Amino acid sequence: MISYITLDVGGSKILGGLFDQDGTILDRVKVKTFASKGTDFVLDQIRKVIDELRVQTDSLKGIAVIVPGIVEDKRRVVMCPNVPLEQVNLASILEEEYGVPVKLGNDVSLAIYGEWKSQEEQSDNVVGIFLGTGVGGGLILNKNLYEGRGAAGEIGHMVVQPMGRRCGCGQEGCLEAYASKSGMYQQMLAERDRGRASSFYQYIPEDGSMVKSSSFEKALEAGDELTEEVIMQGAYYLGKAVATLANVLHVDQFIFGGGMTDNIGDFMLPKALKIAKESSMPSIRDSIRFTRSHLGDDAGIVGGFYFISEGEDHA
Amino acid sequence: MISYITLDVGGSKILGGLFDQDGTILDRVKVKTFASKGTDFVLDQIRKVIDELRVQTDSLKGIAVIVPGIVEDKRRVVMCPNVPLEQVNLASILEEEYGVPVKLGNDVSLAIYGEWKSQEEQSDNVVGIFLGTGVGGGLILNKNLYEGRGAAGEIGHMVVQPMGRRCGCGQEGCLEAYASKSGMYQQMLAERDRGRASSFYQYIPEDGSMVKSSSFEKALEAGDELTEEVIMQGAYYLGKAVATLANVLHVDQFIFGGGMTDNIGDFMLPKALKIAKESSMPSIRDSIRFTRSHLGDDAGIVGGFYFISEGEDHA
Repeated sequence: MISYITLDVGGSKILGGLFDQDGTILDRVKVKTFASKGTDFVLDQIRKVIDELRVQTDSLKGIAVIVPGIVEDKRRVVMCPNVPLEQVNLASILEEEYGVPVKLGNDVSLAIYGEWKSQEEQSDNVVGIFLGTGVGGGLILNKNLYEGRGAAGEIGHMVVQPMGRRCGCGQEGCLEAYASKSGMYQQMLAERDRGRASSFYQYIPEDGSMVKSSSFEKALEAGDELTEEVIMQGAYYLGKAVATLANVLHVDQFIFGGGMTDNIGDFMLPKALKIAKESSMPSIRDSIRFTRSHLGDDAGIVGGFYFISEGEDHA
Repeated sequence: MISYITLDVGGSKILGGLFDQDGTILDRVKVKTFASKGTDFVLDQIRKVIDELRVQTDSLKGIAVIVPGIVEDKRRVVMCPNVPLEQVNLASILEEEYGVPVKLGNDVSLAIYGEWKSQEEQSDNVVGIFLGTGVGGGLILNKNLYEGRGAAGEIGHMVVQPMGRRCGCGQEGCLEAYASKSGMYQQMLAERDRGRASSFYQYIPEDGSMVKSSSFEKALEAGDELTEEVIMQGAYYLGKAVATLANVLHVDQFIFGGGMTDNIGDFMLPKALKIAKESSMPSIRDSIRFTRSHLGDDAGIVGGFYFISEGEDHA
């Protein structure tokens, strides 16, 4: 049986999937990344996942590894702030060890690609927006994954408010500073420091770690005013960003995924859609259509499966 | 000798070009559009241009017509605010009369396509920005003209300042409201009404018509403070828009054209480039490269030549 392995290497965990040639997931393995333990340790974690999946097949045809960073020539990780794989010739290392073709890709791009490929009908042009700790994006244009010079799809760093809030990237007024979990959380912490009342603060972890996406949902459901305000502001800027994307790219659909979409999308996305339609060209606004990701955490490995099994022509 | 005819139908003039199969322009004909005289009159102006060029060739292979509007299936004009050709089956009409294939396209998209095709080396991904009465845009992505669902490239209507200046399109804070001739001119008129001093006002036409692009250059050269301020503001928002485009599309170059680029580009574009680099992702900013259009008024008809002579695969 022909099979493929895909690994989605994130900052905290590595998810591996074993696929048959039709894209059915035969098995999943999940381990911690232990990013702080350095390159060699992470490489061993990667090997551990591959080894566990590989023993289940007798005809492995290829491995795809997707990372939260920028990849060059599908072989080298050139930028990857949260996983110590920068400047590692990961494709060459794994090809030598496992004797099959290995391709590297960007996690968000391939998650969008996976969502798109596994839709019943593939539209020509799609923007994917993942609202999570940050805001990730991916583009399918003319039925191909579009990566430009390699790092396209940085939707979280669209400038939506000149001289606006400082973003984690160092710039001002990025979408991510308003519409991501980390952006919204920063606003919550600032409001707490200012002394404003909110039931949200009970969810702030004492150890300084990142808050859970579900905390926003809980506070929203409890009717917390500040939470609603912060999410509404995020929806406003998300809507403006979608209007800009629609006017520039005139795509068929926007696919939303990510932890924040799962938790507060039902509240946030209709508001963003309204703003997007109001703020875009009359000739374009009717084409703005929002859909939701349907693969959840598997999106990346499913995209990786298509990436490695389809040959060279699509990305 | 195989030849092609391209018409660039604008709001005020129609420029026609006769091309040989290598893309050399053999002759040009220019007439007024007389858009206010209605569809039939404009159709006759189009025929006049074609007839004058057609008599010079014995083997016409095709005609391209480009319009400032949205075209469906390369055959019908579906939106065209400044020329009365909406809902006209222009391709069918001309095919019947002239017996050769006719294709319709958007003027800015094809001008960018012409600029790109006639470069010595074609990069994979290009954004074209035309600073004129409005701000037009066009995209070459993965070495193909990109039009999305038909109207992609509306760069002038990127939202660069939420709740900002009212744009001609009815929305608020569009790039066009800051970086186009009409946007800058509106600001000049508003400052005059407020009583602020400026030497620019001497160039304001008494008949209420649009000011010339060269007036901005003259006032700038004379050291007028308000003119410099308004152009600097335009450069600021242009830079922010370029940063957003670079972060989303990570293209190889930005090509600038249009009357305002010709007149004040030397002053405005370096400032926009600086803002764009400061406001984009560190991993992307080094790739931001500005070039200038080199075809001038011929860009549209040259793009039209490639459009009609190359068959169906590129757009």
